[in-house]
Amino acid sequence: MASDRSHWVLNYTTLLFIIRVVEFQKITLVGVGLLGGSIGLAVKRHGLARCVAGLVRREESIAECIGAGVVDMATLDPAEAVGDAALVILCTQVGQMGELAEQLKPHLADDAIVTDVGSVKADVVATVESVLARFVGSHPLAGSEKTGVANARADLLENALCAVTPTERSDGATVESVEKFWQTLGARTARLSPEAHDLVVARTSHLPHVLATALVCCVLSGAEHGEADFCSTGFRDSTRLADGAAPMWRDIALANPKAITAAVSDLQDELDGLRAALEAGNAEALEQFFDEGRRLRADWLKGRG
Amino acid sequence: MASDRSHWVLNYTTLLFIIRVVEFQKITLVGVGLLGGSIGLAVKRHGLARCVAGLVRREESIAECIGAGVVDMATLDPAEAVGDAALVILCTQVGQMGELAEQLKPHLADDAIVTDVGSVKADVVATVESVLARFVGSHPLAGSEKTGVANARADLLENALCAVTPTERSDGATVESVEKFWQTLGARTARLSPEAHDLVVARTSHLPHVLATALVCCVLSGAEHGEADFCSTGFRDSTRLADGAAPMWRDIALANPKAITAAVSDLQDELDGLRAALEAGNAEALEQFFDEGRRLRADWLKGRG
Repeated sequence: MASDRSHWVLNYTTLLFIIRVVEFQKITLVGVGLLGGSIGLAVKRHGLARCVAGLVRREESIAECIGAGVVDMATLDPAEAVGDAALVILCTQVGQMGELAEQLKPHLADDAIVTDVGSVKADVVATVESVLARFVGSHPLAGSEKTGVANARADLLENALCAVTPTERSDGATVESVEKFWQTLGARTARLSPEAHDLVVARTSHLPHVLATALVCCVLSGAEHGEADFCSTGFRDSTRLADGAAPMWRDIALANPKAITAAVSDLQDELDGLRAALEAGNAEALEQFFDEGRRLRADWLKGRG
Repeated sequence: MASDRSHWVLNYTTLLFIIRVVEFQKITLVGVGLLGGSIGLAVKRHGLARCVAGLVRREESIAECIGAGVVDMATLDPAEAVGDAALVILCTQVGQMGELAEQLKPHLADDAIVTDVGSVKADVVATVESVLARFVGSHPLAGSEKTGVANARADLLENALCAVTPTERSDGATVESVEKFWQTLGARTARLSPEAHDLVVARTSHLPHVLATALVCCVLSGAEHGEADFCSTGFRDSTRLADGAAPMWRDIALANPKAITAAVSDLQDELDGLRAALEAGNAEALEQFFDEGRRLRADWLKGRG
């Protein structure tokens, strides 16, 4: 009897759990790569939707993303993909968002919420918002050197920061739904304007990327004095970000040129100061420079826990 | 009988091996940290010396480096440390080499070979060479985030590149002995002038270091818009080198200011080009920039095997 009752209790709890967490009848991922695939896996793990659909561009991707278990169905047909979807997540390159919004618009339900995962926001939000009324931009700061749906992981968003970037035109309830969606997948959300987002990531993400590329080009382009042989693990780690896909980074740069230019200028000012200290042989200023870098980084790492 | 004979053959081979590899009666490490300690362990592993001695500055370091098994004896007394040594390796900061050479000179045997492990060469070589006749500079490109003798590893130099930097004043046989020493420890050697060395490492090592520091300062100094929270694993890896000890990097910068300034200027030129492309919205130039970085780095990684 005791055993039977605990069995019943368990099932009842499970039922309550299912009732509570199925927030969306259908979620559609537009573009199913590493990030889209990982969102699909996380949605399934957390039981957030009855159906996860994927819109892909290549026939062979259909079997690929169903095989990887990240979606329940996949299609090349926009109408089939987003029809009846309660939440649509655009997981394509930032340069393609505007065109995509136009393409999806006729097939979307009136109350469908749309968000994206683009790493630039002002440009994307302005473009997509003018087409789709219930769009709120997002940017989950989760990635990996690996790409493609085969490397998708259900825990990729766990503890990741996810920016949510409403505007004056955004509907409050929609913004909250989008924030709650990311939080349920394990992410922490930060609400800020698209412009504020772009200024911050220009420094924290785009600047490290362009610097890594500039460093590689500066050291290895036309290297004639054995530079390649003298580059060691420090160089390798410093330049890991230069391994990003060129078309993706071209689009990011084109979508956030002013903020990236300002960040690069600030870094150049920092380097001007260093050069002045080097030229003057200013030991105190040099030690202060290296000491500040070490201290700021150590404090930052400590803050991350 | 067969068993007895093979036993004898083995002993004879071992004996020949011992005769062949004991190249130095005594090797002295001046400064016994991560690199000095690792050299000590490697010398012992390869049976290169009958005695490995350590010259240290703090009383407690004596027990520490004997306990770590990296030396046979350690002392605070320069005379005891380098007396009778056939090979002396200076493993201290580059800013201290000149003073150290003066201090050791009266206690060195006439035929003692002296080398160092400093990461800047022209300045160090000119200073030490004017004091010690049989000095040839070296720079093994081996390191670790970890420091201190407790982290010493016998295989730290395995497959590492080691620059050997003779001048017109160097004795040919001494240069060959130093090269053979590093090779026996598993390193690959590259012979080049101190000036050529400094130009190359200014780009491959010093530039990544100062850039990492400049990036940390630029992003985190006075960060007021949540930058710290938006910095992710890419930022962490890009800035790992900023974790170097400030006094050590101050000395390196002071010893190689012209080459570092030139490398920083070249990088700034690269960034000027990027800014021009950003300001013009030049998609082609931007894609080419990211593509070149990715390609050059991939080729470099391939070349490392």
